Amino acid sequence: MRLTSQEIYDKLIQDDKILELRGQIKFYLGDIDIIVKQKDVVGNIIQEWLQGYLDKRGIDYLPSQNTQMPPDFFLNPENRTKGLLEVKAFNRNASPGFDIADFRMYEEEIIDKPYMLDVDYLIFGYDMSDNGIVTIKNLWIKKVWEITRCMRGWAINLQIKQNVVHKIRPGIWYSTGRANYPMFNCLEDFISAIEQTVYQNPKTHNDAGNWKSRFLDSYEKHYGIKLKIPCWDDISETYNKCVGDQKKDKRIS
Amino acid sequence: MRLTSQEIYDKLIQDDKILELRGQIKFYLGDIDIIVKQKDVVGNIIQEWLQGYLDKRGIDYLPSQNTQMPPDFFLNPENRTKGLLEVKAFNRNASPGFDIADFRMYEEEIIDKPYMLDVDYLIFGYDMSDNGIVTIKNLWIKKVWEITRCMRGWAINLQIKQNVVHKIRPGIWYSTGRANYPMFNCLEDFISAIEQTVYQNPKTHNDAGNWKSRFLDSYEKHYGIKLKIPCWDDISETYNKCVGDQKKDKRIS
Repeated sequence: MRLTSQEIYDKLIQDDKILELRGQIKFYLGDIDIIVKQKDVVGNIIQEWLQGYLDKRGIDYLPSQNTQMPPDFFLNPENRTKGLLEVKAFNRNASPGFDIADFRMYEEEIIDKPYMLDVDYLIFGYDMSDNGIVTIKNLWIKKVWEITRCMRGWAINLQIKQNVVHKIRPGIWYSTGRANYPMFNCLEDFISAIEQTVYQNPKTHNDAGNWKSRFLDSYEKHYGIKLKIPCWDDISETYNKCVGDQKKDKRIS
Repeated sequence: MRLTSQEIYDKLIQDDKILELRGQIKFYLGDIDIIVKQKDVVGNIIQEWLQGYLDKRGIDYLPSQNTQMPPDFFLNPENRTKGLLEVKAFNRNASPGFDIADFRMYEEEIIDKPYMLDVDYLIFGYDMSDNGIVTIKNLWIKKVWEITRCMRGWAINLQIKQNVVHKIRPGIWYSTGRANYPMFNCLEDFISAIEQTVYQNPKTHNDAGNWKSRFLDSYEKHYGIKLKIPCWDDISETYNKCVGDQKKDKRIS
């Protein structure tokens, strides 16, 4: 059976009522079994669970060989440029702790494969109670720009270790408060932030001169569409609402 | 039923044939279940499994409230100075990755409670195959001095972070090769190494002057036995077989 990411999301919510299920992890050895109460395990096994789900429901997919980059699943086995599904999971009582991708690999990948921008992120916000009952508190289906934002000093929220840029990290897209760093509104603004970061990151700075034109050519070649990417300086105010307001900034970062 | 640590060990080996069992970890959510293949989970759940085992076999115990210090279980609920059982587990395909205790807490604890030196360590060496089958490759019952050794520059194998002494770490007691750092032969040599480390560690150096006499008094008060603790300088050669042999030393450390 061929389903889109959105149809899988709808099926999980409506047919399987995933938000009402109660799961658990059990360890068996000999005639003793115990309930495993380690919260951090859940995030790592949801992807495997979804694969079991696709199998059991007879939904077509091909697992990806590359675990470093999205997607996890090709829902269109014959055409790997469409129906790309990435699975993420995080403890709903904390902030989203997953990575989007390594920044440097990502900025190269989206030139190579502009359809990577169309990956659907199926995101599980789980909870594990003190007695080990696992529930899915939220399920989202999102595009990459809907779950990313800028950060202090950078156009994209990045994990930076010892002054070296590593992973692109998600924002808190479900926050209801007035966020100082809202998610991007559209693909074009996200691309603008990526270009700005290519420029700003010492390791990619030398590629910045023609990064945008290379990207636009590749995107047009694939989709037949000429995107219009705004200049980061023209939109940065929208996404960085606390320029100069250090106090406020510190509180939420 | 009242059993000693040794009797529990024997029961696991002989009655339950624990070395022949095949276990697994499963995650259930809805009508889908998957086998969890995360090796690092096992180490953290063996202690809970053993508690389930003690319950199921009707073996008396009281769980300890203090998870920072040994023991995990009191097998003699009325007398918490005897029948102390600590459970450890590690991936048998790697080195023992568990901690014995925080050094500073430990050197104080064994003066306060010299019977802590009589804790039995029940140690599970587990394996998880690529398809998630958990087996116990080895089970040991050991005293603390049988699983500890010295290290380069220190009389006890320590985890040192930014020049600060943290945890006491086990050696590889089951290694068959000619170890440069053999385990201690007896309680007395282990105590000598602890005293030397109290002296050597800047954070405990000021306590070193009367540490040994305080320990000996407390031990005698509890057991009615005057221990004879050798001077570390007199025994260090036995435990540090590669003094001056830096090349060999680097290879195994």
